Amino acid sequence: MNLQEIYEEKKRELAQIERALACAIHTDHDMLRKTSNHLLEAGGKRMRPVFVLLAGSFGSYEFEQLQKVAVALELIHMATLVHDDVIDNAETRRGRKTVKEEWDNRVAMYTGDYILACALKELTALGEYPVQERLATAMVRMCLGEIAQIEDLFSEELSLKKYLHRIKRKTALLMATSCQLGAMVSDVPPALERAVTAYGYYVGMAFQLTDDVLDFMGDEKTLGKPAGSDLEQGNVTLPVIYALNQGSEEVRQAIFTYLRSKGESGSLKEILDMIRTSGGIEYTMDLSRRYMDKAFSCLEKLPATAERESLQMIAEFILRRSY
Amino acid sequence: MNLQEIYEEKKRELAQIERALACAIHTDHDMLRKTSNHLLEAGGKRMRPVFVLLAGSFGSYEFEQLQKVAVALELIHMATLVHDDVIDNAETRRGRKTVKEEWDNRVAMYTGDYILACALKELTALGEYPVQERLATAMVRMCLGEIAQIEDLFSEELSLKKYLHRIKRKTALLMATSCQLGAMVSDVPPALERAVTAYGYYVGMAFQLTDDVLDFMGDEKTLGKPAGSDLEQGNVTLPVIYALNQGSEEVRQAIFTYLRSKGESGSLKEILDMIRTSGGIEYTMDLSRRYMDKAFSCLEKLPATAERESLQMIAEFILRRSY
Repeated sequence: MNLQEIYEEKKRELAQIERALACAIHTDHDMLRKTSNHLLEAGGKRMRPVFVLLAGSFGSYEFEQLQKVAVALELIHMATLVHDDVIDNAETRRGRKTVKEEWDNRVAMYTGDYILACALKELTALGEYPVQERLATAMVRMCLGEIAQIEDLFSEELSLKKYLHRIKRKTALLMATSCQLGAMVSDVPPALERAVTAYGYYVGMAFQLTDDVLDFMGDEKTLGKPAGSDLEQGNVTLPVIYALNQGSEEVRQAIFTYLRSKGESGSLKEILDMIRTSGGIEYTMDLSRRYMDKAFSCLEKLPATAERESLQMIAEFILRRSY
Repeated sequence: MNLQEIYEEKKRELAQIERALACAIHTDHDMLRKTSNHLLEAGGKRMRPVFVLLAGSFGSYEFEQLQKVAVALELIHMATLVHDDVIDNAETRRGRKTVKEEWDNRVAMYTGDYILACALKELTALGEYPVQERLATAMVRMCLGEIAQIEDLFSEELSLKKYLHRIKRKTALLMATSCQLGAMVSDVPPALERAVTAYGYYVGMAFQLTDDVLDFMGDEKTLGKPAGSDLEQGNVTLPVIYALNQGSEEVRQAIFTYLRSKGESGSLKEILDMIRTSGGIEYTMDLSRRYMDKAFSCLEKLPATAERESLQMIAEFILRRSY
C-alpha cells in the first residue's frame, strides 16, 4: 500500500478539503489569486489534513468541523513555507518556482501574511475555543522555533538536544497538533486523543529527520530543490552534527572551516560527500526509525480500525520516502 | 488640550494595556525578547487601544475584555509595521533603528509572524466569535491592501479613487475596527456602534492623508524617518497624484520620468520640491479636513460624555499633528 492508496480511502473528503482550501484563499485580486493558486497547485502531501481526518475518526466524526480545522492547519503550513522560501532564498520548491522567485520577496511576504489571515478567519468560523487556543499556542511555538533556527545558522556548536528541539517546533508540533485538533473536534476519548497526538509528534520527528537526510541523498529532480540546500543556507542538520562530532580530523576541520566562514571557505560538494560517508546519514535514519517505533507503539493504544491501518501505512511511507 | 492630556484621563488603563502588551509577547528566547522589546519601547501613539477604550465607554465598560481586544489590535498593528519595514527597506522608524536594520530581514519577518501569532492567542482568549470574525476579516482586507500597494508602486496611473481605497485598507480599516470592537465588546447600542465605527473610519482616512503630507513636509528628526521616503520607495501618494494631474507640463514630465524609471532618473529632492509647490499638499490637507468634518458629524450622534470629548480632541490633534 502506498501513500496514494491510503489517500484513496479519504478521496472524497480530501477533494472537498482541496476545494475548501481554494475557497478560503479566493480573492478577486489578480496577483494574489495567482500567487495563492500557484501555491495550491504546487500541491504537497496534505499530511496535516489527512491527520485531522484520520484522528477524527476515533470519535464522533463530523466532517464539516474537521474540514475547517484541516483547512486552517494546511493554510498555516502553506504560509510558513512561503515565508521560509523568502528566508532561505529558495528558488524552487516541489519542482516549481517559489513565489519569491516567480514574483519577489515583497509579494511572498504579504502572500504569506494573507494566507495566515485567511487561516485565522477559518479558525474563527470554527468557533471552538480550546481548539483555537491550542493552534494559536502551536503557532507561537513554531515562530519561536524559526527564530531559534536563525540564531543557529552556521553554528558549529549545535547539540543533538538543541537540534531535536528545533525540529520538534519546526515540524513535529504542527503534525501533533493536527492529530490533536482532529481528535478534539470529534470528542475522541482523552486516552485515545493522547495516543494519536503522540503518534503525530513521533511521526513528525521521524519525518523531519528523514527530510534532513533526503537533502543529502536526493537530487533536484526528486527533491524539487537542489541537494545540499540546507547546509548551503547554514542550516546545520543531524548528519552534519554527527560528522562534526564523530568524523575524522580532516572531516571535522573541513566542516568547521565551512561553517565558520559561513560557507565562504571550502567546497560544498566535497563537504556533502564527507558527510555522506561519515556515518551521519545512517545515524540519522536510525534515530528516525526509533521515533517511528514509538509512533507505532502509540497506534497500538488505538482501536484496530481501517484508519489506524492508514496511520500505520503513512508512518511506513515516511520512513521509505524519497520525496 | 493635547494628545498627552487626552491620554492622561485613561492613564491607568493605558499603563495596564502597556503591561499586557509586554506580557503577551514575553518569551524566554533571548533575541526575540530583544526584538519585541525594541518594538514595544519604540512606542507609538497607541491610538488603536485608545479607540477601543473610548468606544467601549458608550456601553457597559468591561476593562478586562476591552484590554484583550486592545492588545490584539495593537499587536497586529505592530506586526504590520515590522513587515512593512522589511518591504520598504526602512532603516529607521520613530527615530529608532528598525528591527530589520538592527538585526536583519529574516529576524524581522519572523518577529512579525511571532507577534501575529501572539495576537491570535490573545484573540482566542477573548472568546467572542463576532469580534474574532470581524478582526480576521479586517486582517484579510489589510493584507489585500498591502498586495495592491505593491502592484501600484511607481505607478503613474493611480487614480484618486484607487488611492483612497488603498489608504482605507492600509489605515482606516483597523482604526474603524478598533472602535467597532470596543463597542461590540461593551454591548454599545447598534446606532452608537455604527456612529463610533464611522468615526474611526473617517479619522483613519484623515490620519493617513495627513501622514502622506507629513512625508513631504517633515524632516528626519520630526518624522523619525527621512522625508520623501514614500516616493523614494515608489509609494505614490495623493500630493504626487495631484501634481501629476494638475501640475505644469514641466512638473508632470519630471514626475513621469521619475516614476517610469522607478526612481532611477531625476533628482528626488527636486521632484519633492515640485510637488510641494504644486498645490497637492493643500489639496490633500483639504481632503483630510473634509474627512475630519465627517468624523465630527459622527460624534454628534454620541452622548456628550468626557470620552466623546476625547475622541474629538484626538481628531483635532490628528489634523494639527506634525509627527
